[in-house]
Amino acid sequence: MTDLLRSFVGGSWHTAPDQGRPLHDAVTGAEVARISSTGVDFRAALEYGREVGGPALRASTFHQRAALLKALGQHLREHREELYAVSARTGATLSDSKFDVDGGIGVLLAYASKAKRELPNDTVYVEGAVEQLGRGGTFVGQHLCTPLHGVAVQINAFNFPVWGPLEKFAPAFLAGVPSLVKPASPTAFLTARLVELIVDSGLLPQGALQFVAGSLGDTLDHLTGQDMVAFTGSASTAQTLRAHPAIVRNSVRFSAEADSLNFSALGPDGSLDLFVGSLVTEMTVKAGQKCTAIRRAFVPADTVDAVVEAVTARLAEVTVGPEGRMGALASLDQREEVRRSVKSLADAGRVVFGDPEADAGDGRGAFLSPVLLVGDPERAEPHEVEAFGPVSTILPYASTAQLIDYVARGQGSLAGSVVSEDPAFVREVVLGVAPFHGRILVLNEKDAKESTGHGSPLPQLVHGGPGRAGGGEEMGGIRGVLHHMQRTAIQADPDTLTTLTGRWVPGSERRPTEVHPFRLHLEELRPGDTLVAGPRRVTQEDVEHFAEFTGDTFYAHMDAEAAAANPLFGERVAHGYLIVSLAAGLFVDPDPGPVLANFGVDDLRFLTPVKFGDELTVTLTCKQLTPRDSAGYGEVRWDADVTRQDGESVARYDVLTLVAKKAEQ
Amino acid sequence: MTDLLRSFVGGSWHTAPDQGRPLHDAVTGAEVARISSTGVDFRAALEYGREVGGPALRASTFHQRAALLKALGQHLREHREELYAVSARTGATLSDSKFDVDGGIGVLLAYASKAKRELPNDTVYVEGAVEQLGRGGTFVGQHLCTPLHGVAVQINAFNFPVWGPLEKFAPAFLAGVPSLVKPASPTAFLTARLVELIVDSGLLPQGALQFVAGSLGDTLDHLTGQDMVAFTGSASTAQTLRAHPAIVRNSVRFSAEADSLNFSALGPDGSLDLFVGSLVTEMTVKAGQKCTAIRRAFVPADTVDAVVEAVTARLAEVTVGPEGRMGALASLDQREEVRRSVKSLADAGRVVFGDPEADAGDGRGAFLSPVLLVGDPERAEPHEVEAFGPVSTILPYASTAQLIDYVARGQGSLAGSVVSEDPAFVREVVLGVAPFHGRILVLNEKDAKESTGHGSPLPQLVHGGPGRAGGGEEMGGIRGVLHHMQRTAIQADPDTLTTLTGRWVPGSERRPTEVHPFRLHLEELRPGDTLVAGPRRVTQEDVEHFAEFTGDTFYAHMDAEAAAANPLFGERVAHGYLIVSLAAGLFVDPDPGPVLANFGVDDLRFLTPVKFGDELTVTLTCKQLTPRDSAGYGEVRWDADVTRQDGESVARYDVLTLVAKKAEQ
Repeated sequence: MTDLLRSFVGGSWHTAPDQGRPLHDAVTGAEVARISSTGVDFRAALEYGREVGGPALRASTFHQRAALLKALGQHLREHREELYAVSARTGATLSDSKFDVDGGIGVLLAYASKAKRELPNDTVYVEGAVEQLGRGGTFVGQHLCTPLHGVAVQINAFNFPVWGPLEKFAPAFLAGVPSLVKPASPTAFLTARLVELIVDSGLLPQGALQFVAGSLGDTLDHLTGQDMVAFTGSASTAQTLRAHPAIVRNSVRFSAEADSLNFSALGPDGSLDLFVGSLVTEMTVKAGQKCTAIRRAFVPADTVDAVVEAVTARLAEVTVGPEGRMGALASLDQREEVRRSVKSLADAGRVVFGDPEADAGDGRGAFLSPVLLVGDPERAEPHEVEAFGPVSTILPYASTAQLIDYVARGQGSLAGSVVSEDPAFVREVVLGVAPFHGRILVLNEKDAKESTGHGSPLPQLVHGGPGRAGGGEEMGGIRGVLHHMQRTAIQADPDTLTTLTGRWVPGSERRPTEVHPFRLHLEELRPGDTLVAGPRRVTQEDVEHFAEFTGDTFYAHMDAEAAAANPLFGERVAHGYLIVSLAAGLFVDPDPGPVLANFGVDDLRFLTPVKFGDELTVTLTCKQLTPRDSAGYGEVRWDADVTRQDGESVARYDVLTLVAKKAEQ
Repeated sequence: MTDLLRSFVGGSWHTAPDQGRPLHDAVTGAEVARISSTGVDFRAALEYGREVGGPALRASTFHQRAALLKALGQHLREHREELYAVSARTGATLSDSKFDVDGGIGVLLAYASKAKRELPNDTVYVEGAVEQLGRGGTFVGQHLCTPLHGVAVQINAFNFPVWGPLEKFAPAFLAGVPSLVKPASPTAFLTARLVELIVDSGLLPQGALQFVAGSLGDTLDHLTGQDMVAFTGSASTAQTLRAHPAIVRNSVRFSAEADSLNFSALGPDGSLDLFVGSLVTEMTVKAGQKCTAIRRAFVPADTVDAVVEAVTARLAEVTVGPEGRMGALASLDQREEVRRSVKSLADAGRVVFGDPEADAGDGRGAFLSPVLLVGDPERAEPHEVEAFGPVSTILPYASTAQLIDYVARGQGSLAGSVVSEDPAFVREVVLGVAPFHGRILVLNEKDAKESTGHGSPLPQLVHGGPGRAGGGEEMGGIRGVLHHMQRTAIQADPDTLTTLTGRWVPGSERRPTEVHPFRLHLEELRPGDTLVAGPRRVTQEDVEHFAEFTGDTFYAHMDAEAAAANPLFGERVAHGYLIVSLAAGLFVDPDPGPVLANFGVDDLRFLTPVKFGDELTVTLTCKQLTPRDSAGYGEVRWDADVTRQDGESVARYDVLTLVAKKAEQ
């Protein structure tokens, strides 16, 4: 008998006391492993996640979690050959395995990198601007995102046993929320190996990742409003889970990514080669077992024959079998399921390539020939029946409006693609069908070479679609992290908001420093540290000199009559760039010190014109510190407020500097 | 017999053929109106919204919708006295009525203003940065938000018959999604009057707003994945709706804002006066019938007596009755419901003020005295039983950690407040309970005067809470608009992305203009219009001259030895502000023309140091146009790319200008 897959719960490996159910090699039909979660205390696992995993994760900053994610990605990369080998037993070709394994590792690394760039080195996330809630400025609001105190229960589909769990885990981990991973049984032996590698790496904090091989038992009954469920799989299972009493009762966040009838459309002008190439790829990669694969291939009515001919020619070259270009379906059951769907599709059209009833390959595994149909888009079936295998239907359209109407009949999809070089056609189709899609690819001669293709979700972009596709949204960069956090509107005085967010908020206390703040190292600076410098008088001579020196002789600075006619100025005014240059002259400390560079400026607004004779003062206040864990410096954002003699602000902006740590000097 | 409330569906008023159910004046008990939606074709109403309302709304831009919203707010403001009069019959005092009516109008105006400032004058919303998806820059991604093609079904609670419908309508309308408004029956006669005023204004496009007086019939059965439901009311109704088969089957977006056990906590150092004042306000405004009202009032264990004494003294001054400071509950049924809940709370504590069984007021209407209890926070009831009336329970806590634990037992609330001047205490409590809250107010001496109070949701901030509070999120500024739109990840080449978003995307075509682009009016400019100017050589003399002139003698510019030691520069470099000043000198067209001013700069990054002798060229490309419908100009955002002789970018930023329209010159 083969080994029983173990679950990893409550900090240790659990082996079920029973014999479990057998799992089969998709290629040979041989038993690969057995699976059972009997004996797992699911309630205790959730509590362990909440009480051990959550606190451990929340103690670290986004950057610290990002560093662990990166290390984990590198660790897995070192073991990917081993994962490929196990993956082969799921029916995957080597290229399919790379899609799954390398894709999953890629998500970890992309998220690690994005988190370091786009998240603060802090434990909370501040979202959006400070809102003035009162005229006097003593009452302000801002949104703060904090990690949920529950567990992210992640239920994955059989088709991506590595990428699936990792794309759900990465954003949860970054958010500071522990994961409970449940793979689909048919390919769970690969996810189990993945989890062993992760656990053995010793990289993750206790409780950050738990794993259930087999049924989730009564897990869902114990969910609270702080837990969440992310599901990938069939629409019918999604519905059952969504209506689960505990999920409904506790408003548990529920995200579903379900089957959908994704489309690809060939524009009247589009490249037949690109369209056909993309379609054949989507039909054959993972034997078409991708939630994002093209099920409905729309083509101009007069090109049906040409498209069928071209697709057929390419499909004829696809070898199917253990060593072929296309691998097996995940199981014999799955193949039967696909055959049933093809029957239903064939009722509303005709099969033009492939024999869905024949056993492809060497007759042992779950091999199936690619199947191409031509369908009638006025029938319901092509828009409703998904054959989750190497199956697509070609559907003719007569006009752009009709195409848009047909596409919408899918009632919500994960992905769509439009093959065309014509901007007007592309714009009409994309904007017309966008409300029904989570992702749309425009494929043409310009991007084809670099395109990652119709079927590939990317960590930077949202994955999920409305309606039939489940209504969920995964990844999408930092959005995916925030899905695991609670957004809370904070209302307070500016000083309190500064304390809560760790960022200096306008209106809160400014503390003059004893030495020039540019002489303070990163560890010595605090939000609120302030320098006031000036005044510097701006004369007509200054303005004329600056104009001559830089070449900026815009009439508002140089021509009294024309400036008077300008509705905003009324008279000659100083250059905005002169104001910020003089302000820098006022706030800079010239000698070498911890401030290494001014690398940028954000949100500069010229608020009031500066007239000849005005005197400028600059107030520079330390706003936000972002230490870099892996460098001898960090970023410091300063609030710069340039005022004139009457206290009115003439310019406001953020000055961005790199400031060295003390130890590094 | 009183009048039957009419529904407004399919573009006309519908009167039910039956007699309907009577609605009663909360103060006198007299019949106010009758209600019935018999005969409404709900399926047709949804289709009318989708086929007439949606297209009409989507034809206008965000700014055009904002202008209508503003006009609508002004129109309603002119009729507010009339609304106050009807509102009185719901049991509201004049002050309660203003809270509801003026609050609702305020939401319309705030949203109109926010939309003009934060949304483009366009029909689609571009979210987030352009993502590079390939090394060569020919394949990029960005998120585009488009309005859902369905109807927003808005189910409101009885307690805010004006504010409730308007806070749901405003963001839907701005998004371009038609609303179907269903008020709670007891106070539907006020919402009906509101809708009459709206319809009579003639301001809204056909189908943008429909209204059902009475039951929603089989409306939910006909929902598709493009529709959405926003519900405010009891947790039990929220659960029933959330599990509705059509909602589950079609992944209909469902947002609930439900009862919750909101807390307020007095810090050990907090102002007793502020705490007590806030508590009494929350107990008595709208007779405590606010989803956000304070149900659990936590105080340090040793202050219970003092707090009870102070609250009691204030409550004793609250007159209850038709002319009193506190009005009636919405109905006699509602009063019975509250009495039942108070009984349950009293089992886990004791009533220290008010007689819940006595009929307050003049004995006719649904009047009830305020009821204050002291409870045992270790019992479940105070954290679970909501008496939706003028009822709060004082609960002692012994330590900050214990307070946080108790607060979390509410399992998710809309709002919380902390009364304290102590930053460390505030930080610990707020961050500790934030995951359980949609909004938290910090109340202290600094913000008390301007604070809008514990119970007031604001359009700028999110409203809704996790878990028991329903898990929904309403308003929150532009977030609330986006809840009505589908986010779609677009993958394309830069040129196509420019066509789709209406914004010039880096990497897409730059078109040199025949005349200097600063000579083109707003209507003549197109994204992609480009000026290339330069080169300008930067010499040591320039840098030294600029340093002397501005006072910016930072060592990296002036001191060869020190500059050489800087890890980023290695030698003396030009000032960043010199680079942008010289760039302006290169791109500015000096003569009077359509460009009125450069009002700001965004996202300036200095990418590569400029060394002595480098030659600078600037490429200025029109990136985004935002015409102002109500002004003779608009905003134009330019991409500025300053490169040196080898083509390397040394600085990149957005230049913001105001450009006149042609007609206005």
